[in-house]
Amino acid sequence: MSNTDTGRSAGRGRRPGAPDTRAEILSSARSLFAARGFGSTSVRAIAADAGVDPSLVHHYFGTKDDLFVAALEIPVDPRELLATVVDEGQDGAAERMLRIFLGVWDDPQHRLPLIGLFRSLLEPAGERMLREGFLPVVLIPVGERLGVDHPEVRMPVVASQVLGLILVRYVVALEPVASMSADQVVATYAPVLQRYLFAPLPG
Amino acid sequence: MSNTDTGRSAGRGRRPGAPDTRAEILSSARSLFAARGFGSTSVRAIAADAGVDPSLVHHYFGTKDDLFVAALEIPVDPRELLATVVDEGQDGAAERMLRIFLGVWDDPQHRLPLIGLFRSLLEPAGERMLREGFLPVVLIPVGERLGVDHPEVRMPVVASQVLGLILVRYVVALEPVASMSADQVVATYAPVLQRYLFAPLPG
Repeated sequence: MSNTDTGRSAGRGRRPGAPDTRAEILSSARSLFAARGFGSTSVRAIAADAGVDPSLVHHYFGTKDDLFVAALEIPVDPRELLATVVDEGQDGAAERMLRIFLGVWDDPQHRLPLIGLFRSLLEPAGERMLREGFLPVVLIPVGERLGVDHPEVRMPVVASQVLGLILVRYVVALEPVASMSADQVVATYAPVLQRYLFAPLPG
Repeated sequence: MSNTDTGRSAGRGRRPGAPDTRAEILSSARSLFAARGFGSTSVRAIAADAGVDPSLVHHYFGTKDDLFVAALEIPVDPRELLATVVDEGQDGAAERMLRIFLGVWDDPQHRLPLIGLFRSLLEPAGERMLREGFLPVVLIPVGERLGVDHPEVRMPVVASQVLGLILVRYVVALEPVASMSADQVVATYAPVLQRYLFAPLPG
């Protein structure tokens, strides 16, 4: 805030501690994740693009997974929220997941940036972020930690209902789904999501 | 095709039988439905925009509902397909609906125009077409004819899963949903859609 040290060293390199270094790394991460996808983007490549040492990327953001979540620009870390889903076991897991989801999306402060994120996920680069990033980094680990069988099959099915709910409740605002109370949303969707998580898989 | 009568009468009016009249009406319908929504667009306004008599709109397209379906530019009339869902009663209705849906969307010829339509539905004008057009013109009548209670509540919930399935299977192409066989999609989703149609409503 009151840091006045905004000077840069000569030439291409930047001072490691310059206040905009974090933002530069984040910007490079977003560009590269969007252009190449999560799997094909290394921390080394992000560091090179930002003109910093890879150790500085880890210093600011932790792991590549952490950096991905930061690059998503969502107002909360979904992994922390979803940890509470996991900690209480399988019973009622879908309901807890939905209530956390609604707590974030129903908050007017978060709604618009999240709708922006949802729209950007439908663009070609965003699709890759969903496919190669959000799913393997966030959703599938939740399924694994819940102990579901075949999380790589079940979590995309869960995603298909949650994304459809986002579309209808928040993006298109179809009534009556748009105005349902949290309890009504839970009563409508939690049994289905619980089924997607735990019912025997067909075939 | 071999019609060479492309002449126009003098001034603003067009010859009623000119080969582009149908296309002009359709173009006006799309613009006005998109700009004002289905409910606020009259056949009279569409005719005026196209510079033709309203009777000509009815001549080419039938009712305003029919014109809306034509303006959607989808390769099939969903109402005809869905009639077969209705005719065989409530048992297995969701499975029949899904198989018709898959027959259209899984066809490579239809896929791309439909994805284009899906994307345009997410734009502000498209959202109104979904909210004020597709739902009341197509989906809710299917629910009514199936004899479900509260179709105005149930069909938007059905839409939330079907739109999410479109998003995941076709738009984002998340595996394994993108590569599931039709039978696997039916086994996964039909019981849930049947529940959304017919299970007792919560609260």
